[in-house]
Amino acid sequence: MTDQGSKQKQLRIAVDAMGGDYAPEETVKGSVQAAKDFGLDIIFTGQTKDVESALAKVDVGGVEVRVVEASEIIEEGEQPAIAVMRKPNSSVAVAAKLVKSGEADAMLSAGPTGACMVAGLQYIGALPGIERPMAGGTFVGLAPQTVILDLGANIGSKPEHLVNFAVAGSVYVSTFLGIENPTVGLLNVGSEEGKGNDLVKEAYPLLKESGLNFVGNVEGMDIPAGKVNVVVCDGFVGNIILKFTEGLGERLTRWLAEELKGKLSKDDEDELRKKLARTMGAAMEVGGGPLWGIDGVVAVAHGASKARQITGTIEQIKVAIETGFVDKLRKELERVQA
Amino acid sequence: MTDQGSKQKQLRIAVDAMGGDYAPEETVKGSVQAAKDFGLDIIFTGQTKDVESALAKVDVGGVEVRVVEASEIIEEGEQPAIAVMRKPNSSVAVAAKLVKSGEADAMLSAGPTGACMVAGLQYIGALPGIERPMAGGTFVGLAPQTVILDLGANIGSKPEHLVNFAVAGSVYVSTFLGIENPTVGLLNVGSEEGKGNDLVKEAYPLLKESGLNFVGNVEGMDIPAGKVNVVVCDGFVGNIILKFTEGLGERLTRWLAEELKGKLSKDDEDELRKKLARTMGAAMEVGGGPLWGIDGVVAVAHGASKARQITGTIEQIKVAIETGFVDKLRKELERVQA
Repeated sequence: MTDQGSKQKQLRIAVDAMGGDYAPEETVKGSVQAAKDFGLDIIFTGQTKDVESALAKVDVGGVEVRVVEASEIIEEGEQPAIAVMRKPNSSVAVAAKLVKSGEADAMLSAGPTGACMVAGLQYIGALPGIERPMAGGTFVGLAPQTVILDLGANIGSKPEHLVNFAVAGSVYVSTFLGIENPTVGLLNVGSEEGKGNDLVKEAYPLLKESGLNFVGNVEGMDIPAGKVNVVVCDGFVGNIILKFTEGLGERLTRWLAEELKGKLSKDDEDELRKKLARTMGAAMEVGGGPLWGIDGVVAVAHGASKARQITGTIEQIKVAIETGFVDKLRKELERVQA
Repeated sequence: MTDQGSKQKQLRIAVDAMGGDYAPEETVKGSVQAAKDFGLDIIFTGQTKDVESALAKVDVGGVEVRVVEASEIIEEGEQPAIAVMRKPNSSVAVAAKLVKSGEADAMLSAGPTGACMVAGLQYIGALPGIERPMAGGTFVGLAPQTVILDLGANIGSKPEHLVNFAVAGSVYVSTFLGIENPTVGLLNVGSEEGKGNDLVKEAYPLLKESGLNFVGNVEGMDIPAGKVNVVVCDGFVGNIILKFTEGLGERLTRWLAEELKGKLSKDDEDELRKKLARTMGAAMEVGGGPLWGIDGVVAVAHGASKARQITGTIEQIKVAIETGFVDKLRKELERVQA
C-alpha cells in the first residue's frame, strides 16, 4: 500500500543466455516473459552484443533486465564439464558466480547438464554429503506423482548415496508436488528384503533407519503403476530405464499411427499421438527443474527448450526459492547423515 | 520306404505333468498335441493317477505315451529351488533324471523357473564356465530380432559372465531366429568405450576380444529400436527392464482403451488391444523356451501356459535338439573361455 511496499526487493534470476539449442533468442524471450508473469528481475550472462540483439526483439517494458558479459564460449565438440573448468568466463560459469556472490538468488541454464553441474559444484558448492548433484524427475506420464533418481548423474553409487537420493526425492515431491510424507521404494528384482545385488542389500537397512517413509523394495512394474512417490536406484539403472522409455515411446507412437491409419479422424489421431508422447515421456513436457544437491537454486532447462519451457523452468525456480527447497534438502541431508 | 525307415527312433520328451497353473490337464493336452504334430514320444512325470485321468480326456491314438511316477509334490509356499533339492522324487526332478539317464532327449516343465534350473543343474549339470543357467529372450515385440539377457537369473554378474551371456544370446539368435553372425551390444549409459560402471568397463574389452560380432555399447533406446540382436546386461538391470515393460504394457493398454472409447469400432478396439499387448510383451506369446547353460535341453514353459503354449514350447525343444543348440553353445563357450 505504501511506496516502500511497491519497491519490495524482487527475486533476481541469473540466466545463461547462451546455453541451449535456441539461445539466445528463445532463452531471452522466455525469461522476459517469466519476469513479467512472476515479477522477477533477470540478469543475463553471455556475449553482450548477442544478448542485446535478442532483447531488442522482445518487449521488455516494466521488467528489470541487465546483461553481464561472459567473454568465453564453450564450443561445439568440447567436453562440457571440462570446458566449464577451463573457461571461468563462460556464460554458465558467470551465472553461477553471480549466485555465489549473492547478486542473483538463483540461476538457469539450458546448456549441457554436465556443464551446469560442474559450474554449480565449482562456484556454488554441494550440500553436505553430496559428491555429485543428483538427477531425477517424473518421467513416465502414467505415474505423474512418482519421481525416480538417480537418472544418470551418479554411476556406481554407494549405499549411502541411495539414501541421499531418497532424501532428495522426498523433499522434491513434498515441495513441488505437495505430497506430505512421500513414500520411498528401493528399485529391486523382488519385493522381499534380502533380494538383489550388494548395493541394494546394503542400502535397504540404511533406508529403513533413515526416518523417511520407506516402504521397502519395488519392482519394475511398480514404476508405471506409481506405487511409490520416490523410486531410488543407481544412475546406471535409472539412465537405462529413462532412455528405454523414451525410445519405446517414440517407437510406440509410430506403431500406433500405423495401426490406426484410416480408423480415426485426423484430429483424433493427432491428439492421441500427442497424448501418447506425453504419457511416455513426461520429462520433456515439464521443461526442466532444479539440480538436486547444489547449495543454491541451479535449474537446468532442456537443451531443446523454446521460450515456453524457459518460462516453465523459471516458474520452478520461483517455487524452489519460495518454498526453501535447498534449505529443506540441506536439513534433511544433515538429519540422515547425523 | 522300408519297414526300418518307418520305425526310426523318435525323439522322447520328458514332460513334468504337474508343473504349471493348468497342470496336469492343459500340460497333458498340449504335449499329446505336440507328439502328434511333430512325431514325438512323451514321457510324463507326476502322480500316475492324476496324469492318467488327464490322459483319459484326450485322444492319444497313434502317440507313444508313458507315465513315470513322481511321488513327491512341491507344495504352494515352498521355495521352489530348495524344494527340488529336498524332493528328488518331485515331478520336475524325475524329468531331469530321465534326461540324465538318456531315457529322454529333453525335458519340459511349466513349474517355477527356479525349480527347473535347480533340477537341471543338479541332475543334468551345467555347460563349461556356467555357474547358473542364464535367462533371456525377446521381450519387446517391437524388436522381434533382439534378445536380452540376463533377465534375472544372474544378479551381480562378473565381467566374464557377461561374455557367457553374449555367447548364449548369439547361439540362440543364430539357431532359433536363423540370423547369421548376430550383432552383440553391451547395455550401458553411453555409446563411447569407457562409459558406465566397473562391470561394463571390464566386460567391454573381453567382449571386444571374444570373436563375437560385438558392436560396442548400446543404450536404453536401442532396445526397442532393435539396434542389435543380443543385448547383454547383468540380471539386475535386465529383470527390472523386463518387469517395467510388462507393467508399462498393462497400463498403456488400459490407458489406450480409455482414450479410444467410442472412437473405434468394438472389433478394431479389441484387435488393437491384443496387438499392443503383443507388441509390449513378446515373452508370453512365445510360451517358453530352453534354459541357456544346462548340459541338455531343458525347456521352461510359462506357469500360465495352456495347451497351445505347451505345444509351442515343445516345438522349440524340437528345434533345439535338431539344430544341436546345446552342443553349439558348449563349443562357443569353450572357444571364448580358451
